[in-house]
Amino acid sequence: MKTRAAVAWEAGKPLSIEQVDLEGPRAGEVLVRIVATGVCHTDAFTLSGADPEGLFPVILGHEGGGIVEEVGPGVTSVRPGDHVIPLYTPECGQCKFCRSGKTNLCQAIRATQGKGLMPDGTSRFSLDGKPILHYMGCSTFSEHTVLPEIALAKVNPAAPLDKVCLLGCGITTGIGAVLNTAKVTPGSTVAVFGLGGIGMSVIQGAVMARAERILAIDTNPDKFEMARQLGATDFVNPKDHDRPIQEVVVELTDGGVDYSFECIGNVNVMRSALECCHKGWGESIIIGVAGAGQEISTRPFQLVTGRVWRGSAFGGVKGRSQLPGYVDRYLAGELKIDEFVSAELPLEQINHAFDLMHEGKVIRSVIRY
Amino acid sequence: MKTRAAVAWEAGKPLSIEQVDLEGPRAGEVLVRIVATGVCHTDAFTLSGADPEGLFPVILGHEGGGIVEEVGPGVTSVRPGDHVIPLYTPECGQCKFCRSGKTNLCQAIRATQGKGLMPDGTSRFSLDGKPILHYMGCSTFSEHTVLPEIALAKVNPAAPLDKVCLLGCGITTGIGAVLNTAKVTPGSTVAVFGLGGIGMSVIQGAVMARAERILAIDTNPDKFEMARQLGATDFVNPKDHDRPIQEVVVELTDGGVDYSFECIGNVNVMRSALECCHKGWGESIIIGVAGAGQEISTRPFQLVTGRVWRGSAFGGVKGRSQLPGYVDRYLAGELKIDEFVSAELPLEQINHAFDLMHEGKVIRSVIRY
Repeated sequence: MKTRAAVAWEAGKPLSIEQVDLEGPRAGEVLVRIVATGVCHTDAFTLSGADPEGLFPVILGHEGGGIVEEVGPGVTSVRPGDHVIPLYTPECGQCKFCRSGKTNLCQAIRATQGKGLMPDGTSRFSLDGKPILHYMGCSTFSEHTVLPEIALAKVNPAAPLDKVCLLGCGITTGIGAVLNTAKVTPGSTVAVFGLGGIGMSVIQGAVMARAERILAIDTNPDKFEMARQLGATDFVNPKDHDRPIQEVVVELTDGGVDYSFECIGNVNVMRSALECCHKGWGESIIIGVAGAGQEISTRPFQLVTGRVWRGSAFGGVKGRSQLPGYVDRYLAGELKIDEFVSAELPLEQINHAFDLMHEGKVIRSVIRY
Repeated sequence: MKTRAAVAWEAGKPLSIEQVDLEGPRAGEVLVRIVATGVCHTDAFTLSGADPEGLFPVILGHEGGGIVEEVGPGVTSVRPGDHVIPLYTPECGQCKFCRSGKTNLCQAIRATQGKGLMPDGTSRFSLDGKPILHYMGCSTFSEHTVLPEIALAKVNPAAPLDKVCLLGCGITTGIGAVLNTAKVTPGSTVAVFGLGGIGMSVIQGAVMARAERILAIDTNPDKFEMARQLGATDFVNPKDHDRPIQEVVVELTDGGVDYSFECIGNVNVMRSALECCHKGWGESIIIGVAGAGQEISTRPFQLVTGRVWRGSAFGGVKGRSQLPGYVDRYLAGELKIDEFVSAELPLEQINHAFDLMHEGKVIRSVIRY
């Protein structure tokens, strides 16, 4: 079939809207019509060429919501008409990782997904016979896309897909990092570095976890109002201080925070986030994705004196079994998503959505097909 | 009073046996006659001059066992005749750290202890009127020493002090890092980097935690036999391999270990220890003390994909409340100490004890007064 997609032909260039060819689903695969998709910093990171795993040409996008149109042989858990959220972290339920009970990092299709291919080692997208790669196993910047069955969370059809698509990445990542990875306890003090979609979601997660103080930290003070509305209690602009931000935070919090979250992907900020943690027990969680070859560092004394350094991917959430619950919490009013949608655009304006993100003017733009 | 002590007059020089002056205990302080003391790498580290907190002249030693001779005003928890183990990590029970329930790092006397002084800001040791500093709040290389009451664990007098003195540092640190910091679970795979007294104790702790596989890693294969006797199951000499040791360990363990422990103080080994952990859940615990200004580093991707980086000081053990239980476990045969005593020497041969340690020929030398 033909479908409309935003193609990234090469790194650093704007996306190009094309009518591409899409093959139907093979065994274990599902054809999904994407209804809406968020535009995330990770898409921009790969498009920029800084992502060491970035491959081109590719159809980006990994934060979508859609409806199943057709299933391939052997697919049993979804059927046409089901509302689904694509999962860049799938859940096969069978691999060592899924069975461990300790991680959401299913590795069943990791190798092919990392190469931009379906599990059988081929692509479903092409144009004029030339293959175009899948992205993070999702490629939600295409109106139709094919995904492995294990990479689809079936969700409540009452939920608006142009909102809950954001649970496909940023919001779940932020909330999950608080609830699953850090396991923030009531009464805690929390520092959030970087107030994009993930940082704002960390604030929301910290409120859900009944943190007492939530420090919102960003060099763009325009972000503070929304952070306040979500529940942040303190606001720190590193540009207002001429000493390391970790010192400022330690002083503001009588010794440091109980938990900190790095939501940017800056290795220097990752160090600050660790070092602003309280001696004896503070835990820092890295969520942001750093550039190729970059490294974090600190004095080991920071850890020996009780700080803990962790990371989180997709908020530690197991997509197929846990994401439907997030959708239900949204429908029950326990979880905010609407506030995160700053702009809604048609696919044709997707490059503008990237511009808005780079200008820091939006939390999330949502593309509606 | 006069007492016999090994004085470190300056960094890098042998210790000098002297008759020094010791003032009696002031309020909240206790005079202890040291019966025996271990000689630990940390003493050598400070003596070498590499310790950024090292101060001279000083009486080193922090792994002792002794008997209370006299108590100062206000001391209520110990009395003359009690058998005690000095604690370089005290337990006041009152500070924010003690009350947190999350750490053993009591901070009540941290500032003065770090300066080599008693809590009132003065030293009890001197020679010819010139003050000599305390070390880690213990100074067990003196036959008599004065300690704060909160830095003494009262232990079962049935235990031989020339053995249980080793619970004052290395053995407790290693076992505690396994049981308290890592909380190793039954059936786990564990890697131990560095087979000194702490590494050997980590092996012992891993056996107590019912780990299934215990990889003992050292560049000195002479250490492997004792590691085997303590319960290690695999033995790896990095010199036998021409690629990074983390790759070797990952291959040997089908993806990496569940827990790793760095027991050396080498920042490169700390990185290897982290990176040999299993994706998704492996945790690495830094126990070794690195040199001044040295830093650990890794790619943040190591953490984002589920590895956890921690540290441990004195094995997370609260000295006054928990160390007596370690002594009782030794008396009950549940915990090995005798095997760690490779040599017993009089104070006059303490420099030889340092030589033996540097040559890697002993796990621990014990000085008997």
